[in-house]
Amino acid sequence: MINYPNKKTSYTKIEEKTPKTIDLKKSRLGINFEDMINDSNRYYLSKDIAVIHKKPTPIQITKVDYPKRSSAKITEAFYKVPSTTDYNGIYKGKYIDFEAKSCKGKSFTFNNLYHHQIEHLKLIEKHGGISFLIIKFNDFDEVYIVPTNILYEQYQASFNGGRKSLAYSFVKENAYLVPIGYAPMVDYLKVVDKIYFKE
Amino acid sequence: MINYPNKKTSYTKIEEKTPKTIDLKKSRLGINFEDMINDSNRYYLSKDIAVIHKKPTPIQITKVDYPKRSSAKITEAFYKVPSTTDYNGIYKGKYIDFEAKSCKGKSFTFNNLYHHQIEHLKLIEKHGGISFLIIKFNDFDEVYIVPTNILYEQYQASFNGGRKSLAYSFVKENAYLVPIGYAPMVDYLKVVDKIYFKE
Repeated sequence: MINYPNKKTSYTKIEEKTPKTIDLKKSRLGINFEDMINDSNRYYLSKDIAVIHKKPTPIQITKVDYPKRSSAKITEAFYKVPSTTDYNGIYKGKYIDFEAKSCKGKSFTFNNLYHHQIEHLKLIEKHGGISFLIIKFNDFDEVYIVPTNILYEQYQASFNGGRKSLAYSFVKENAYLVPIGYAPMVDYLKVVDKIYFKE
Repeated sequence: MINYPNKKTSYTKIEEKTPKTIDLKKSRLGINFEDMINDSNRYYLSKDIAVIHKKPTPIQITKVDYPKRSSAKITEAFYKVPSTTDYNGIYKGKYIDFEAKSCKGKSFTFNNLYHHQIEHLKLIEKHGGISFLIIKFNDFDEVYIVPTNILYEQYQASFNGGRKSLAYSFVKENAYLVPIGYAPMVDYLKVVDKIYFKE
């Protein structure tokens, strides 16, 4: 079997000891959406279902100290704009690539994405990969996959007098609900199956 | 057309003004292998051949200052062990994933790779992706693609009395030479074609 030395050998749920009767939504308070997706990816990896990782946050390092010969300490650095998306990997032999976002209220504004991230998703689709935005509406405790073609259409329309955001109502009607559960917390690949692997 | 705002609109070679008569090897002095691969990836992106990006270096951030409301300054951080490889993306609809390394002398020791990186490459192969080590022997100014199956075999053998490194002579005989040139500097996808897309 695959043996990952850095804590990936076995899958450990974040809330392993939570009894099943507890209110699911309440038990997730304090766990951000990124953690939920990471948890799901660890699950998929442990079950040999998919190999999907979060990309590290890009950092511009400007000063480094070497207190010891062997160890470097970064003393000045800045966040950089990510050139692509948060997550990518392989699923059922296919390249998969997505951005994960959560939002409050009844709409997700396009300002939360960089233009080049949307173009990147579009480019992946064009090259035959699976790409989408996965979005959590926190106030509704609901997660949706918005396939790139739908996202792109709305985004393009926003330059021609359309709204500058994805309305919750629009997403509910046009995108794909991802059930939230325990293992994995966000079983988005089940929904990917429905959208991209239907016979 | 795809329009990347962050300097990706057009492809700019690192040595744009270098005349063709100059000694290729000399002109590359000071350009590290990573830059050469990044240059090649920018070329592939600009020509719509493939979408392959380097993953950011993973950093553990421990202290952040907020001198202005809008900008964060990281004042303490450390390098983290990468959980996967340097590069991944999509080529001809396939997931592609590789680690890029350069070395001095006549062998590349396995110590330059993490165990879990080699396992990751193996896992990608198992899931139907393309994965390999691309290695530059600086003293010979030669670049080779070592497919994961060959790498893995040698790596496994190193635990059973085999050598703890890939000898240049072994690589020369068993791996695939990648010509070094101008645009792109390392046309590794041409060699990927030969290895993985042959009829």
